This record gives sequence, structure tokens and C-alpha cells, in this order.
Amino acid sequence: MERSVCLSPQEKEQLLSYFETQVMQVLNWLAAFSPDEEGGITRLLYTDGWLETQLALAEKMAGFGLKTEFDNVGNLFGKLQGEDLDAPSIITGSHIDTVVQGGMYDGAYGIAAGLLALDYLQRQFGKPKRTLEIVSLCEEEGSRFPMAYWGSGSIAGKRNFEQIVHLQDSYEVFFADAMQRCGFGEGTGRDSRRSDIGAFIEVHIEQGAVLEKEGIAIGVVDTIAGQRRLKFEVIGEANHAGTTPMHMRRDALEGVSVMIQALRQEAVRVGAPLVATVGRLQVQPNVPNVVPGKVIFTVDARHDDEQALDSFCQWVMKEFTSLADQRQLVIQGTEWFREEPVPMNDKLKKQMDDVCGKLAISSKRMVSGAGHDAQMFEHICPTAMLFVPSRRGISHSPEEYTEPRELAVGVLVLTELLYRLGYEGEEL
Amino acid sequence: MERSVCLSPQEKEQLLSYFETQVMQVLNWLAAFSPDEEGGITRLLYTDGWLETQLALAEKMAGFGLKTEFDNVGNLFGKLQGEDLDAPSIITGSHIDTVVQGGMYDGAYGIAAGLLALDYLQRQFGKPKRTLEIVSLCEEEGSRFPMAYWGSGSIAGKRNFEQIVHLQDSYEVFFADAMQRCGFGEGTGRDSRRSDIGAFIEVHIEQGAVLEKEGIAIGVVDTIAGQRRLKFEVIGEANHAGTTPMHMRRDALEGVSVMIQALRQEAVRVGAPLVATVGRLQVQPNVPNVVPGKVIFTVDARHDDEQALDSFCQWVMKEFTSLADQRQLVIQGTEWFREEPVPMNDKLKKQMDDVCGKLAISSKRMVSGAGHDAQMFEHICPTAMLFVPSRRGISHSPEEYTEPRELAVGVLVLTELLYRLGYEGEEL
Repeated sequence: MERSVCLSPQEKEQLLSYFETQVMQVLNWLAAFSPDEEGGITRLLYTDGWLETQLALAEKMAGFGLKTEFDNVGNLFGKLQGEDLDAPSIITGSHIDTVVQGGMYDGAYGIAAGLLALDYLQRQFGKPKRTLEIVSLCEEEGSRFPMAYWGSGSIAGKRNFEQIVHLQDSYEVFFADAMQRCGFGEGTGRDSRRSDIGAFIEVHIEQGAVLEKEGIAIGVVDTIAGQRRLKFEVIGEANHAGTTPMHMRRDALEGVSVMIQALRQEAVRVGAPLVATVGRLQVQPNVPNVVPGKVIFTVDARHDDEQALDSFCQWVMKEFTSLADQRQLVIQGTEWFREEPVPMNDKLKKQMDDVCGKLAISSKRMVSGAGHDAQMFEHICPTAMLFVPSRRGISHSPEEYTEPRELAVGVLVLTELLYRLGYEGEEL
Repeated sequence: MERSVCLSPQEKEQLLSYFETQVMQVLNWLAAFSPDEEGGITRLLYTDGWLETQLALAEKMAGFGLKTEFDNVGNLFGKLQGEDLDAPSIITGSHIDTVVQGGMYDGAYGIAAGLLALDYLQRQFGKPKRTLEIVSLCEEEGSRFPMAYWGSGSIAGKRNFEQIVHLQDSYEVFFADAMQRCGFGEGTGRDSRRSDIGAFIEVHIEQGAVLEKEGIAIGVVDTIAGQRRLKFEVIGEANHAGTTPMHMRRDALEGVSVMIQALRQEAVRVGAPLVATVGRLQVQPNVPNVVPGKVIFTVDARHDDEQALDSFCQWVMKEFTSLADQRQLVIQGTEWFREEPVPMNDKLKKQMDDVCGKLAISSKRMVSGAGHDAQMFEHICPTAMLFVPSRRGISHSPEEYTEPRELAVGVLVLTELLYRLGYEGEEL
């Protein structure tokens, strides 16, 4: 006979109501740490507010009967020991840090969801077959130091202490000093690198508006998109806006406006999941009565297919150069950031599809255009990600919002998946 | 028998050589006042450097036998008294102030040219029939206080002390206090308003590249173009650049790039002398991985025909609104600056055409896209302007440059015109 965390629509409804209340309690409790003056949350790595949050979380995990432990970079784990001591752990969680003036869901929701799932499973079903863990990763955003995925990357062996030696924040505080101030660093406690993880499941808000617009409850992440960030400098000639006839101009901004159009048209032609954005643009001298002599701008391009992404970026370089040449503008383009696409684990994705189907919860496979800790874990274990809707796709803002019921659905799907992996012994 | 300052090609060549040396001496001498650290000249109204320059100029004028006088705003006049004491004065000159990091020709050239013309005429031909004056206008650029044409406007009755009561510079120094510190202001010396001017002739660098590209020595200004400055705010939705599919975006910058294209195409279609420029543009939040939610930008449009300018600006408002609507962007446009076209005096223009023809100097009628002191004088007397070429059209920059010989040609044409008006008694 099939087992599940909820076997009837009534049970499902009860569980959703329960999770709805609980998840808001945990999220509101977390949001009360590191509030900023603009009504958002600013919880940067290794700040006082960050440390206070991790310590409070450790206390809460212990209160839920989990065995807590910090590693030497400040990742916090809460462990629900399984019967099989040799089986690798199933880990869920997300990051505790925020951007400057962030919202209360990004990262925090994944921690709250994992905490509630483990608590519920333990109370309902007792000791699991395989060890389940919740992790509050120390850092993902790269908002204080120029280094993202510090928490998950340290676990996956993709980040190490050598890489941060010279890093400073905007107040010239060194990374290592900030870390040490919180009691972490090389030689303090357990090495962050792990090789005993059986699977990693991350629950997160979508940070896009696709689920909301399509009215779907759960996004099963197929692939985390690869990213390329390019920077262009276009040089024309700054001239008097009143005395320079139209045909004598070498207007850098006019040239760039054509490039922005071309970029959009080509992105639409290539089609989803490709996205391309000119997000940052600066004009020089930027004075109303001077023809722009120089424009510096960025292109952010993402796709789940590496080859398609590369060929798009090659097209951009070639097309922009040609458009500049036609206007006697000088252009220089460089790639300053690159991340390859990371496909999520097939078996876990199918499990997740199946969980949603069984629980009668609408879901769709989708590409994550944003980067996530999951892409670090995928290097060392089968990894999966689950999205819930984000109101109007707004994220990295105090306006970030997801309905409590939508959050509860994500917790339910995670709980069921962890039940299958931890208690039913589903093979990975 | 026809009289002229030079009756043969030999005389013309000698005079040009003479003016070439002299004009560079005066310009280099002037440039030595108020040099800035960037290799340019920064001579802002009522600063120490400004006062030092005006006082040194007064001394030089007196040394040339001119009777000097400051008015109560700091305009400096040097008078060559004519035989007819009742006839209104013929005045030439330009402004002594500069922009921040300006060049050595803008304004200063008109003063140097007038000074040399009067000196030469006096030494060659003695006392004129009509009084000739050179003026070093205190201010034109509006670079220190938010008020341009203070010198010429005060003479023409278009500026007055009431208008500057609340004005402060960027260091919060009040206009009146700065003026008083230099010994000027209400109740100090002669009232600036004049009604005894028979004509005003201004010599200036073109600040555009038309004369240079067409290989023409003198531009006879037909009309000083009217100006409209518009400001637009375009609001879309700031969203995550990775998670927002192309078809779900309301990208303010993409919309504005279409507007920039449309503006240029329509300006080219309408044709010269219309010019239209997007010179200032700011993106919000201006981050590489966020779809721009807001763009603020300016449009500067100029034309010598007021109706054509108005109808162009109406087109801009309508077209931008329509382009915004098509993209579900919200747009707000306002006009924040307006100046009507000012045609120069017909008889003086014809005199100037004729002078150039007689001296075998190439010339063309042209629109001044830039504003000048001459547009203030035109309210109270017949006014004319003459341009010499500007290398690559560069102005308001230390790189501003005109060949000494080109400068000399301008001085020669001015000298001949003043000869006709002052000594030959040409009717105005």
C-alpha cells in the first residue's frame, strides 16, 4: 500500500493550513533580525545581524530536536539522524544572507520550508531511514564581498580560503577578518568541504512572474541557466547639441539605442529560455546640450543551453561591432562574467513531478534564470530545486511577496519528497 | 571713390599678418588669467580671477586710448568717442566669463577682435564719425549661477536685480553677495540698462564644424536658433534579468531606445537647421542584472523657425507617448526651457555679406544653433553676428581651437564693418 504524508484531500488541506501558519511564523521571526530603515532586510555576511540570526536559528533547530553544528565558514546544519549510519545525508535548505534592502523570502523561505518539513516528519514518523539535514547556508548573494555562493561553494569544494585572502568589503574590511570576528575561519571547527551528501533539495521563490502569470503552484527546475555578462564601451564624439548638424554627428547614445533594439529583436527571435538585458548604461558627458561622446553599458545574457548562449554572445559581439562601424563609432566589448548552465538531477526532477501529480498540485518544468546554491551542490551530489510563485516577479526588494498558501504548497511538496527519500528509501 | 581698410591684396595680406600676431597675443594674455588645473580656463562670474581679468582689460583699453567705464553689474566698456555726440554708439564685444574647464576662444575672441579693430581704426583713421565701443560683458554662460546672459541681458533690460535675489552658486554664495564683493551691485556706478546703442556686432567662434567642413572663412549669422528643452520620465517595471522572459518585460530602456531612434529619424526627415539631441539619460536601478524600471532623459531641439520647432516638439510628445503606450510604459514629458528664435538685423547681414565679397573672403549665411549675447542686444538695437571656424566643432573644452589666420580673417571683417559704420556713416 502506498504511503504518503497525506493520503486524502482532507489531510492535504489540514497540512496546508498548518504549514501556512507555521511558515509565516518562521519567516516573520527571521525577518525581525537585521531589519533596515527602508522597510527591507539587510543581512550581509558576517555582520552582527547575520551572526545573531544564525545563532537564533541554531537554537530553534535544537529546540526541534535536531543536532546542530556550524562548519568553519559559518554554514549551520541541523541533523535528524537516520537508522542507516552509512547512508549519505539528504540535505535541504537555502541561504540566510540577503542583498542590501532585500525581502523576507529570498533564501529564508528555503530554510523555513526545510525546518518545518523536518520537524513535521520527525513528529509524525519518528527516526528516518536515512539522515535528513537542514542547512542555513552562510552566504549566496555576494552582496558584501565580491564573492557569491561562499556557503554552498565551500561545501562543494568550489570555494576556499585562498580565494578570499585579498577580498575586502566597501568599508575595506577584509573577508577573513570579518569571518574571524564571528568566530569562523581556517582552523575553527569542522572543515566545510563535504563528501557525504546523498542529495540536496532547495526550495526557493521563483523571483520571476512565470508561475504567477500561468497560475501554476510549483516550478520544477530543469536547469539553472548559464550566464554571460558583457561590457561595452562605445566612443563617438561629444559635440555642441546646437551647432552640430544631424549628419555631422557621431552620437554614441544613438548608436547604442540601435544596439539595444537589435539585442531585443535577436533575443525574441532565438526564443525562450534565452533572455538578454541591457541593465546598466552610463552616458558621457551626460549633459542636455551636448551630443553624447561615450556610452558604457552591460549586456546580461542567459540560456540553459551553453552552445546557444555562446552563439548568441558571438552574434552580439559581431552585430554591435558592425552597427558601430556603420556609424563611425569605436566599440570595445569584453566578457567579464561567465557561468555555465547546470542541469538538475533527472531522477529527483521526476520524483518531484510525481509528488506534485500525486498531491494534485499543478507544476511545470522550468529554467531558473537566476543563479542558486543548488548549482554548487550539483557538483557533488544529485540536486533539485523547487520554485513557488513570486508576486509580479519582484525580488531583491522589500516588496518581495508570496501568498502564505503558495508557500505552504512548497513546504508540502518538500515534505513529501523528503518523506520518500528519507523514510521510504527511494533510490537516487 | 570707394574707401576701405585695405584696398589691395597686398594690404589685405599685411593686415591679416598683423592681426594674426596681435590676436594671439591678446588671447594668450587673457588665457593666462584664471587657468585651471586641467589645462583649461575656468573664469566664473564675480570670482577673483574674473575681477582680475576685467581690471586688467580696463587697463589695456585705457592704454589703447579708450575711455573705460564699468556699469553696475560689471560690464566693462571702452569708448572711442565720435564726432557726432548725439548719434547712438556702435558696440562690439563678447563675454569674458567661461564655463568650467572652458577654452581660450569662446567669448574672449570677440573681445580681442573688438579691441584690435578699435585700436587699428583709431590709429589709422583717427576719430570716427560715430562713437565706437568695445564691451567685455560680465557673464553669458550661466556656469556659476543659474542665470545666463546676465551682462547683455542687463544692458537690454531683460535681466534685473530682482531676478537674482534668491540665486546661489553651488557653494550657497548669494549672487548679490558675490557681485558686491567685486564692487558691483545696485546703486554702485552707472545703471547697466542702455538705450543709446545704434548697433551691436558680435564676433565669435562657430562652436560647430560646419565652416571647417565646408572650407568657408566666415559665417554670417542669419538667425540665432530657438530652443526647446524637454524632460521625459519613462516608467516600466524593474525585474530580475534572469527570471523575466522577454515577452513579460516592461523594459523602460528598451522603450527609450526606440524613442531615440524615432527622434533622430524625424529630425533628419524635417532637415536642417533642425537639430534634436538626447544628451542626458539616467537608468534606474542601473544594475547589470535588473531590467531597467525607469529612465529619465532630456531632449534638446533647435530650429530658426519657431513654428517648425513647435510642431516638431508636438510631434515628439505625441510620438513618444504612442511608443510608450505600445509597450505598456508610463511616460511623462515636460518642457523646462524655451527660447524663441532671434533673427539678426537684415541690413547688417547684407553689409557683412558685402564686406566679405569686397575683401574676397568666403562666407555663408548660417543659423547659430548656440545661444549668444547678440540675442539680448537684438531686443534694443540692430544686431549682427559673425562666426569663424572651430576645429572639429569642439567648444567648452580646453581643446577648443581656431587657427590664428582664421581668427585674423574675423578681425579683418569686423574692422571693415566698423569702418563702414563708424567712419563712412553707413545707415542702419
